[in-house]
Amino acid sequence: MQFGFQIGTRVLFGKGCLFANKDILNKSGRRALIVTGKGSAKVSGALDHVEEILRDCNIQFSIYDKVQNNPSLENVAEGGRAAKEFNADFIIGIGGGSPLDASKAIAVLAVNNIEPLELYKNVFENKPLPIVAIPTTSGTGSEVTPYSILTRDDMQTKMSFGNADTFPKVAFLDAAYTESMSSETTVNTAVDALSHAMEGYLSKRSTPISDLLAVEAIKIFGECTEALTSNNIDFDKREKLLYMSMLGGMVISHTGTTIMHGLGYSLTYFKDVPHGKANGFFMREYLKYNYDAVSEKVDKMLKLFKVSSVDEFGDIVDKMLKKDVSLSSDEVHLYASLAMKQRSTSYNAREVAESDLVDILSKTF
Amino acid sequence: MQFGFQIGTRVLFGKGCLFANKDILNKSGRRALIVTGKGSAKVSGALDHVEEILRDCNIQFSIYDKVQNNPSLENVAEGGRAAKEFNADFIIGIGGGSPLDASKAIAVLAVNNIEPLELYKNVFENKPLPIVAIPTTSGTGSEVTPYSILTRDDMQTKMSFGNADTFPKVAFLDAAYTESMSSETTVNTAVDALSHAMEGYLSKRSTPISDLLAVEAIKIFGECTEALTSNNIDFDKREKLLYMSMLGGMVISHTGTTIMHGLGYSLTYFKDVPHGKANGFFMREYLKYNYDAVSEKVDKMLKLFKVSSVDEFGDIVDKMLKKDVSLSSDEVHLYASLAMKQRSTSYNAREVAESDLVDILSKTF
Repeated sequence: MQFGFQIGTRVLFGKGCLFANKDILNKSGRRALIVTGKGSAKVSGALDHVEEILRDCNIQFSIYDKVQNNPSLENVAEGGRAAKEFNADFIIGIGGGSPLDASKAIAVLAVNNIEPLELYKNVFENKPLPIVAIPTTSGTGSEVTPYSILTRDDMQTKMSFGNADTFPKVAFLDAAYTESMSSETTVNTAVDALSHAMEGYLSKRSTPISDLLAVEAIKIFGECTEALTSNNIDFDKREKLLYMSMLGGMVISHTGTTIMHGLGYSLTYFKDVPHGKANGFFMREYLKYNYDAVSEKVDKMLKLFKVSSVDEFGDIVDKMLKKDVSLSSDEVHLYASLAMKQRSTSYNAREVAESDLVDILSKTF
Repeated sequence: MQFGFQIGTRVLFGKGCLFANKDILNKSGRRALIVTGKGSAKVSGALDHVEEILRDCNIQFSIYDKVQNNPSLENVAEGGRAAKEFNADFIIGIGGGSPLDASKAIAVLAVNNIEPLELYKNVFENKPLPIVAIPTTSGTGSEVTPYSILTRDDMQTKMSFGNADTFPKVAFLDAAYTESMSSETTVNTAVDALSHAMEGYLSKRSTPISDLLAVEAIKIFGECTEALTSNNIDFDKREKLLYMSMLGGMVISHTGTTIMHGLGYSLTYFKDVPHGKANGFFMREYLKYNYDAVSEKVDKMLKLFKVSSVDEFGDIVDKMLKKDVSLSSDEVHLYASLAMKQRSTSYNAREVAESDLVDILSKTF
């Protein structure tokens, strides 16, 4: 038995957890840069709550709300400048994966005079500013991972950096902030969370504890499939999805992701397919491809989903996600070659050849 | 759903993990105080390995090897002075629960001019020195908890302090260092680890994640009962026990313990019964006492132990632990009243009255 375990984030989970623990926010610093996008932080009510608490605690703050979907290096560079100008001593990220991931890059850039590309060195002279993470979706798990996934236009894909210092110090998980998600985003992000648990569970880097967390996440997804397909999601289910998403984040903090993410990045980069949906498209073929290498684990998953075959499960996922994309043969080959360049591809249960990815892409589209 | 999650320790688990990760030790500081007792650190080989790595990394070190079994406040005060005199910038605790718990107190006292009794305030002007923990038993779980349990002669019992800063920063878990334990200590410490999982699982403070970890620990204990009773413990089982012990530590980091510990402390304080054994004596009556309040969870545990009743499980534990103590009626009443003063007693599944504890003690002895 050989493994490592590290979750550098303190989690507060539950309705009202932000107000119930405002002393924790109060101890995080005196000058906060709030990092968010244009959307969910406001609509969800999370931003209002944070502002209220910050005022109450006499914490100065500034808002950087220009985080793009799938933020670019230029985007986080601008955020880093905003943090420097405001002289922030901590960062509060509010939103889905994009703002949370951007927060980590901004926390590093705020205190290091480096080019954004140097984020990928993963070694920084000065420790990043402390990050407080408040998710408004149930997918990314970014609130409990060290990873920041940014769009690399130079490589036509998304790529992650992160080290032990980029774990958010604290994460507040209140399912009330996920209630304003559209049903489509609810499904897409839930599928993202599932992809984390699934890829972690089948990863070469899986550990006894990551498996424990992954199985729990997969089980919970199984308990929510009907609600997700019928778009009948009450608060109890919202909490389950948020919990599952957190578990998925803890899983990939140890294992990383594999080829569903590697392939999905291209769908997002070139076709603007939402991240979770992009991963979900590949689930069926991903499971079939890996079945022989990890049949016992796949069978266990199918049991937790209460289905008897990969195809039966694939049909459920397809029902959740409208497959509104098609790929040309050139695109298939390009996406396969780009995914081969992702480090995470080497963690896949089966040794991956480029032709395998071409095959998965062709069968999927 | 309402819960918190925090494990402030990075774990490296596996045979040879110390040498494989010596860069982590190298980054921990330049002047180490090694905190240990007279026994296991040396016999296990762990101390030799640590010294070798420290020399190799040019880290200055001093050894404080006077930690007593169930260390007293005076004992850790002496260790704190040793750390100050040596001007240590980090602490390496090696051993069972006593040295690891002492390390936490010494890490606080090294940088705070307070009386040892003030440890129980749990708020310190200066952050404790970073702690590296290397367990040589599979019971305490102290390597992944913030708790330091010290003997309080003023209160005739043991009592714990600890806050988020007293989690060891890093823990190296190599089952090879547990091989020198006697079969008796192996059993006693395994039962201690089980008591953590069990009390956490049935605690009022249990959380979804602590339950997940507790059930896994209980399952693993179930896989080891035969090896433990027949004293046939190979390396694979040693790893399982060490893993279980770590899980138990993670559980009580969230839940704390309850009345098995509260009662066990008196057996240790007054009768010198080893800690795990002291807890184990109470398992049968503890489960019977709590059955009505948490019958579903107890039934699940019995299933994981592959037994059909609490008594069948109690018989297995009794077979493992030789009950070589008897109590007078005065002692029964004293121990019950002391356990009532433990904060942890309020976390027990059932609301505890002093007469309940008298009853449990009387039935046990």
